[in-house]
Amino acid sequence: MITLAALQMKSESGDVTANLARVEQAAREAAAKGASLLITPELGLTGYGAGDVIRELAEPADGPLVRQLQRISAALGIAIIAGFAEKAEGTIFNSAVYVDGSAEPVVYRKSNLYGDYERALFATAEPGTIVFDHRGVKCGMLICYDVEFPENVRRLALAGADAVLVPTALPAGYSGTFIADHMIQTRAFENQVFVAYINHCGADERFTFAGSSRIAAPDGSLLVRGASHGEALMVVTVNPADFKASKSENTYLADMQG
Amino acid sequence: MITLAALQMKSESGDVTANLARVEQAAREAAAKGASLLITPELGLTGYGAGDVIRELAEPADGPLVRQLQRISAALGIAIIAGFAEKAEGTIFNSAVYVDGSAEPVVYRKSNLYGDYERALFATAEPGTIVFDHRGVKCGMLICYDVEFPENVRRLALAGADAVLVPTALPAGYSGTFIADHMIQTRAFENQVFVAYINHCGADERFTFAGSSRIAAPDGSLLVRGASHGEALMVVTVNPADFKASKSENTYLADMQG
Repeated sequence: MITLAALQMKSESGDVTANLARVEQAAREAAAKGASLLITPELGLTGYGAGDVIRELAEPADGPLVRQLQRISAALGIAIIAGFAEKAEGTIFNSAVYVDGSAEPVVYRKSNLYGDYERALFATAEPGTIVFDHRGVKCGMLICYDVEFPENVRRLALAGADAVLVPTALPAGYSGTFIADHMIQTRAFENQVFVAYINHCGADERFTFAGSSRIAAPDGSLLVRGASHGEALMVVTVNPADFKASKSENTYLADMQG
Repeated sequence: MITLAALQMKSESGDVTANLARVEQAAREAAAKGASLLITPELGLTGYGAGDVIRELAEPADGPLVRQLQRISAALGIAIIAGFAEKAEGTIFNSAVYVDGSAEPVVYRKSNLYGDYERALFATAEPGTIVFDHRGVKCGMLICYDVEFPENVRRLALAGADAVLVPTALPAGYSGTFIADHMIQTRAFENQVFVAYINHCGADERFTFAGSSRIAAPDGSLLVRGASHGEALMVVTVNPADFKASKSENTYLADMQG
């Protein structure tokens, strides 16, 4: 059983200092509400639509930005998932990092880049199966478009993940509404896992975001949901044991063929 | 472009003659409305919950039942998909057949059996990639629980299917409602294909069905939907070319990794 916090966030485009301060403020509020993990959006620390400046803001996973996140995490006693541009292997990845105080950070790199904008900025990572333990709950990470591919969530569920945590940058519009209203819950249900899908709100110079962050339970129900507009800090306790009935009725992982 | 008809049907449990007559009546009505293909539910010809009698009603795909369907199809000028118990390979499969007049029937065998009831009656088929041409549209078939596995729909989409046609027997209840209201549309959207999901209504001696048959378009929208109760014959024209914008925005098949 863990208490998750999710920050639907209006990032300041290209202003890492401001965004880090916003994440710190939310982490303090979430910790005060009993949360042990705060999830924030894709590229939340750089802004999603900042363009070429994102390349200049890229840092290695052992650089000052992640160390600063670790200090915030240690000081407030809450783990944090944050999206950043990661300098590695001579290129730049669209990554998310899980920090828990001074423990070794866990980094996930996006494997399904969406559209020309992302492909111009980032290298495509090999599909990664990043699963880690958070207070006794096995958590996997994906980023945005990754979760739209059922194969990626399935891979994490088969690796034992109870919860799939997904920083995202979902644009407003017909497809975004469909993804938020149908696909995220389906990913949870078809794997009987929690799916936390945490988005930006508002607009930057390139994109208008759908908001509508949400955490779906293994039975496909929504535990929390953000509005389509405006920042929100959502806190919810999730317990895999609460969904035993759904898991024994919907035995997808056991019943796969071929 | 094809015009599909779908019969949300109250099968008579164990009464093949009555069910065949019902299908013939619906085929006549559908043909009069311009449909070129009628889709009916899983095991619609035997009834889904008839139990052991289903084994006695099993026939090979070249037996009198399928020949009778072919005669109906030829006489009315409309292709038909119907669910039946297929005697083959020394066992019995939960199958669906596509008949189009005197052309060779196309048979699909369910590979994901659900629960003890089905597993006691039927043999599990190897996952099959059954794709056929219907009036210029490439159609794949699955049965009920099969479609709940994203891998099965993906396999058909990668084989070129424009439409996945799914006779089903979805029970009423929380999970059934979730599957109808979220999962079917997600399968369509995540592969950019049509999904026709055609259910029983009412109850037999073992099950109460969810009705809620539906045809989803590649953009995830619903083209038709049956009520939760009562029979319904739905007729709709589907045209893959109408969804070019959705397909160029949601390029899942091209963007798969790994």
